Amino acid sequence: MDQDILYMKMAIDEAKKASDNVFPNPKVGCVIVQNGKIVSKGYHQKFGGPHAEAEALNNCDTQLKDATMYVTLEPCNHYGKTAPCTSLIEPEKFKRIVIANRDPNPLINKGLQTLIDKGLRVDFNVCEDDAKFVNRRFFTFYEKKRPFVILKFAATLDGFMSEIDGHSKWITSKKSRLSVHTLRSSCDAILVGRKTVEVDNPSLTSHGVGPDPQVVILDPSRKIDKQYTAFNKNTIHFTDELSNSNPEKNIQKILSKLYSLNIQSVLVEGGAKTLTGFIDSGSFDEIHAYFAPKLIGEGISIYNSKKKIADSLNLDIVKHETFDNDIKITYYNKKAK
Amino acid sequence: MDQDILYMKMAIDEAKKASDNVFPNPKVGCVIVQNGKIVSKGYHQKFGGPHAEAEALNNCDTQLKDATMYVTLEPCNHYGKTAPCTSLIEPEKFKRIVIANRDPNPLINKGLQTLIDKGLRVDFNVCEDDAKFVNRRFFTFYEKKRPFVILKFAATLDGFMSEIDGHSKWITSKKSRLSVHTLRSSCDAILVGRKTVEVDNPSLTSHGVGPDPQVVILDPSRKIDKQYTAFNKNTIHFTDELSNSNPEKNIQKILSKLYSLNIQSVLVEGGAKTLTGFIDSGSFDEIHAYFAPKLIGEGISIYNSKKKIADSLNLDIVKHETFDNDIKITYYNKKAK
Repeated sequence: MDQDILYMKMAIDEAKKASDNVFPNPKVGCVIVQNGKIVSKGYHQKFGGPHAEAEALNNCDTQLKDATMYVTLEPCNHYGKTAPCTSLIEPEKFKRIVIANRDPNPLINKGLQTLIDKGLRVDFNVCEDDAKFVNRRFFTFYEKKRPFVILKFAATLDGFMSEIDGHSKWITSKKSRLSVHTLRSSCDAILVGRKTVEVDNPSLTSHGVGPDPQVVILDPSRKIDKQYTAFNKNTIHFTDELSNSNPEKNIQKILSKLYSLNIQSVLVEGGAKTLTGFIDSGSFDEIHAYFAPKLIGEGISIYNSKKKIADSLNLDIVKHETFDNDIKITYYNKKAK
Repeated sequence: MDQDILYMKMAIDEAKKASDNVFPNPKVGCVIVQNGKIVSKGYHQKFGGPHAEAEALNNCDTQLKDATMYVTLEPCNHYGKTAPCTSLIEPEKFKRIVIANRDPNPLINKGLQTLIDKGLRVDFNVCEDDAKFVNRRFFTFYEKKRPFVILKFAATLDGFMSEIDGHSKWITSKKSRLSVHTLRSSCDAILVGRKTVEVDNPSLTSHGVGPDPQVVILDPSRKIDKQYTAFNKNTIHFTDELSNSNPEKNIQKILSKLYSLNIQSVLVEGGAKTLTGFIDSGSFDEIHAYFAPKLIGEGISIYNSKKKIADSLNLDIVKHETFDNDIKITYYNKKAK
């Protein structure tokens, strides 16, 4: 069993090699072991391209017999952009298939049964938490039936996202802003409140780094002028849907709607009212906090509700990195609703 | 010359091995090279113990002849806790001595001339900036004639050091607080304003981690009760000295006084008024910022003056580290006054 964990961790390392251009597919890695030796490995490199199992088989120079395949996600059993992976896993070559995560997509998760029906021994849930974390956007979407929610803010060290009049150009460095554009290009949608559009008139695009996220604007009072840059034919404009006096209910409604539109991840970029609503609702998965080495003493704060010090947000730091002299801290909310 | 840089960088790496228990001495490293090979190295390990040059010579198993010594600080020429290093560096063994920094201490910096007088070739200012950075507390003290000033705060992500009533127990984790105690034990003095003493009644000690810093309390209105825990026979109590209406002038007066008391480093732990005074004065060298994953919406802010986003503090991040789910960011103020 220790050997299983070792090989599965290597398969997870393969999965991690995938960049975000596999979205909306998950990142999957595969390792093939025969007679106690790794004979091949591979990962799903690109949306529409070969799956991890096919990559590992293509990369394999050894004649397979009684081999074991370690794969981080249940092999697919359906014809999509490629042939079903289960059809590639032949009992003449393999004796055993070890899987980290079952596929949460109800359209796809017949792979395990198909492999068993072929007479293969199948073990699953090996390193399941580690593998799930790599695909947390994907799993959150299917398991919680809502997009993976990332809250992003850029602030001074004293917690202000802008000066008192809303002016915020620029708190963070050019490199930080480029990292935000990269983050945007990895998300299906970007969501802001009305005021953010009115004060900044932002494009909300990836600025050419990659695909642009679909724009979502919250405008409960229907006050916004659609001439702003962020409006285009694909913009989702929430208005009457936000009529509930309880902001948490409105957020649930927004997330259900985005789920129904097949939006797997949404980046919430503010302003304070919108961020506060999401934080208080508990329906968020990550906070991406950028801090610049500035102190301004007054301005628009990140959070406009009230809490006690004892009310911890229960966030785990998953990454901290610098962009020139800004720092970005990525927090994961393991207790997300 | 490239070789000189290489060997000096190795000597600097030796210097970095020293812990803070060499204070008030600087951290010094030494590498001895003969016939293009490193034949010994060493560093100053403990206040009162052998200097780096003596360590490297003691560690040397090779018969030295025409060797080169790389040392990060000008060898001393005086009898202190140990014999002068210049007396150990004999022309029978060495041809050349390469030094990163001249000693800024006017009582000591006769070493270079002594070595030249012995007939040795001496080169200096090799990798001087890198070597100086390792001993920035020491150099700041002698060059700016004031203690090295570290501002420390612990805050929520929205920049509050306490709730509105001053309650701050505990924003950060136990591990963060332990790191603060370690930081305190590395400083000669710890400085706070009157209100911090009154609200928290802190001990301001290292809590047994190491030596306790000398306590400095700013109390311009002479209002404080000396029954508070932080008061002891060594406490420095600034009162009438702070009569200037310009806070910058008061800070200059405080720092001059601490310099005259031979205090090489001072840790400023707040509160907001004191931190703001130091920040606005420009007379600070580092900010040690601890952020906990909390948002409270209102409280006592880090900074109570006003600035624009364009007024950058010009701080460099020199380190970022986590303590459980808190982050500590260490900023260096390269434009300190």
